[in-house]
Amino acid sequence: MKNLVVAQSGGPTAAINATLAGVIATAYTSEKIEHVYGAVNGIQGVLDEHFIDLSEKIKSARDLDLLCQTPAAALGSCRLKLKDLDKDKAQFERIVEVFHKFDIGYFIYIGGNDSMDTVDKLSAYCMQNNITDIKVVGAPKTVDNDLVGTDHCPGFGSAAKYIGVTFAELERDCHVYATKAVTIVEVMGRNAGWLTAAASLARVNGAKGPNLIYLCEPVFDNDKFIADVKAQLEENDSVIVAISEGIKDKDGKYVSEQVQSGAVDAFGHSYIAGSAKVLENMVREQIGCKVRSIELNLMQRCGGHLQSATDISESRMLGSKACQCAIEGDTGVMAAVIRQKNDPYEVTFTAIPVSQVSNQEKKVPADYINEAGNNVSKKMMDYLYPLIQGEPEIVYEHGIPKHLALY
Amino acid sequence: MKNLVVAQSGGPTAAINATLAGVIATAYTSEKIEHVYGAVNGIQGVLDEHFIDLSEKIKSARDLDLLCQTPAAALGSCRLKLKDLDKDKAQFERIVEVFHKFDIGYFIYIGGNDSMDTVDKLSAYCMQNNITDIKVVGAPKTVDNDLVGTDHCPGFGSAAKYIGVTFAELERDCHVYATKAVTIVEVMGRNAGWLTAAASLARVNGAKGPNLIYLCEPVFDNDKFIADVKAQLEENDSVIVAISEGIKDKDGKYVSEQVQSGAVDAFGHSYIAGSAKVLENMVREQIGCKVRSIELNLMQRCGGHLQSATDISESRMLGSKACQCAIEGDTGVMAAVIRQKNDPYEVTFTAIPVSQVSNQEKKVPADYINEAGNNVSKKMMDYLYPLIQGEPEIVYEHGIPKHLALY
Repeated sequence: MKNLVVAQSGGPTAAINATLAGVIATAYTSEKIEHVYGAVNGIQGVLDEHFIDLSEKIKSARDLDLLCQTPAAALGSCRLKLKDLDKDKAQFERIVEVFHKFDIGYFIYIGGNDSMDTVDKLSAYCMQNNITDIKVVGAPKTVDNDLVGTDHCPGFGSAAKYIGVTFAELERDCHVYATKAVTIVEVMGRNAGWLTAAASLARVNGAKGPNLIYLCEPVFDNDKFIADVKAQLEENDSVIVAISEGIKDKDGKYVSEQVQSGAVDAFGHSYIAGSAKVLENMVREQIGCKVRSIELNLMQRCGGHLQSATDISESRMLGSKACQCAIEGDTGVMAAVIRQKNDPYEVTFTAIPVSQVSNQEKKVPADYINEAGNNVSKKMMDYLYPLIQGEPEIVYEHGIPKHLALY
Repeated sequence: MKNLVVAQSGGPTAAINATLAGVIATAYTSEKIEHVYGAVNGIQGVLDEHFIDLSEKIKSARDLDLLCQTPAAALGSCRLKLKDLDKDKAQFERIVEVFHKFDIGYFIYIGGNDSMDTVDKLSAYCMQNNITDIKVVGAPKTVDNDLVGTDHCPGFGSAAKYIGVTFAELERDCHVYATKAVTIVEVMGRNAGWLTAAASLARVNGAKGPNLIYLCEPVFDNDKFIADVKAQLEENDSVIVAISEGIKDKDGKYVSEQVQSGAVDAFGHSYIAGSAKVLENMVREQIGCKVRSIELNLMQRCGGHLQSATDISESRMLGSKACQCAIEGDTGVMAAVIRQKNDPYEVTFTAIPVSQVSNQEKKVPADYINEAGNNVSKKMMDYLYPLIQGEPEIVYEHGIPKHLALY
């Protein structure tokens, strides 16, 4: 028997703990695994030997359910990216040293692109150095839905549901006044427009939904935007526009960079925010009607009270799948979901080499966007629809959803 | 038999349609009322004779339930304030003319301060001119909870629940990184801090909740704020701050006015937004840690998927009470709720002269705030707690809550 370590990384989502629950449930039922540890703050927690014995925190199936409804990484996260194998082996040696010290045979890392890079490098290091007693497996997670190799990512469906519901509610709100007004809503998505596309889900019950939707994939043209808004104002009092935070002009420059500094985060990504604010000012100056901007901000990724049951079930399955892969001897793979068909919705779970996943981005294909570049196509609606179905029963206590804290 | 007109005014809430449902339910069951009309866009709809025959839209108890779960005014709203009685009688003459034309004996107006001003003036006009066949009654509504004469206002409880839940989720989200960071969350409330105080509800299940809470009633001191944040950063990695949009300095100037124009809305209120953004920049410059600002924006007032069952039941009761008052011959009154006791929570429903309500604001009393002015007191928690209890079962269709549209 060996021990297992599970860790989480990257941005929080409403489903990342369901994947953790899936890992734990499968580990608890395996005769090959003795202790199940959680590393606090991702791979940093491994380097720091900051482990939690999860059996002391998760003692029942009910605890697992509560974990599933708790948003954001219960084991914490980090933004630490491991150095390249050929440049610096010290981090890898340290990780393996810690794993051997704690008799860790299985390491499951739940995260997005950068986390899969860690799985890729660490599993490659082990293979290159003939370390066969440590299996390293990834489980996908990202609200952005931009991981390749999986039909969609845990966390995306719940965020999509939050966005669809919120746009439906904003539409009711903006509908009440009989005056011309434009509401510009900024949705997360630096380089992939999946989340912004989810605004279209506000339409599934016959509502109009956002009048215009601009994803970050097509070139964003200011003049075209103003013309689109003017045309919508001809026909409607209230015009709602969904935009990706990462809309870019023809030179690839973020619209938001018109008002932002050149700050970058730890991964060298441009720090961006405020595309909607830029467009708000543009509408005010060039059209002159009432206009406001809204950012869905962190709420869209941590809305645990508004999870998609489909997302949570699949996220848990992917955690189980990742754990099962490791138990059965796989390493350097990521659990993934394959959509078999749409109506009725059917999926299967598989594992793919993580080297095919890391450091790539799955952008929205052109045929998921309408020709004018200001809305989504039916293909996108068909893709999104199954992912937001179902509402898990959330346990409330004293009027607020109960959350489970691990540290 | 006479006809009844009901209308809605002021800002949308998640409960204003429950009050409408209460009016309709009581009107439908009265032998004194023949047709139940809805005026579209508040008193403007009366002036324009823009009426909906509600019996064509609301045909079952289930329709009433769907109306209750639909956020924002289903009959639309307006910001029209009637002129003073002694200055211009034309509007009042027109309203009475329309009412007589449509054989209206009862007018129920659901709204906040400005709407109660309409009820007050219109009922006074009728009394002064011996028009006894039109009864004018108000039903309260405001997310801001700033109406006097009622313990609390329909819409507030649901917004408070949305805010409490959202802060609980943001706390999970902000907790994941082991780096010093400040998150400043701006909550609605121009002159009354009730909604911002609701951020404290994130604590009811043992979570820490916002580290600091600044309502708009106490004077906001920039230096004190920076010192408070620094002290919190000593003890915590993640510091969450709740602030009212309307925080003001010792001269009564909005903090947000540091970056805003002097624009005013139709009622002469200063147009404000962005207090959190001002403080974000202040923290960045004076402390230098990671900092971000979030506005809960319109989402906090139209979050129909996250209603408080207590709020919805009481809102419906207040609509019924207002209708019942009119049927029984009252005029110039507003339905109100009186809290009898807290544990167990008990209320009664009454009616008070609307002249005692209109054009006033109920601010947060000093003893609902801690001495340092950076948090709420136990008294506030005790006041808020019962108002967010219970979760109505929301009907979803295709993954999105079903809404009922009346026009």
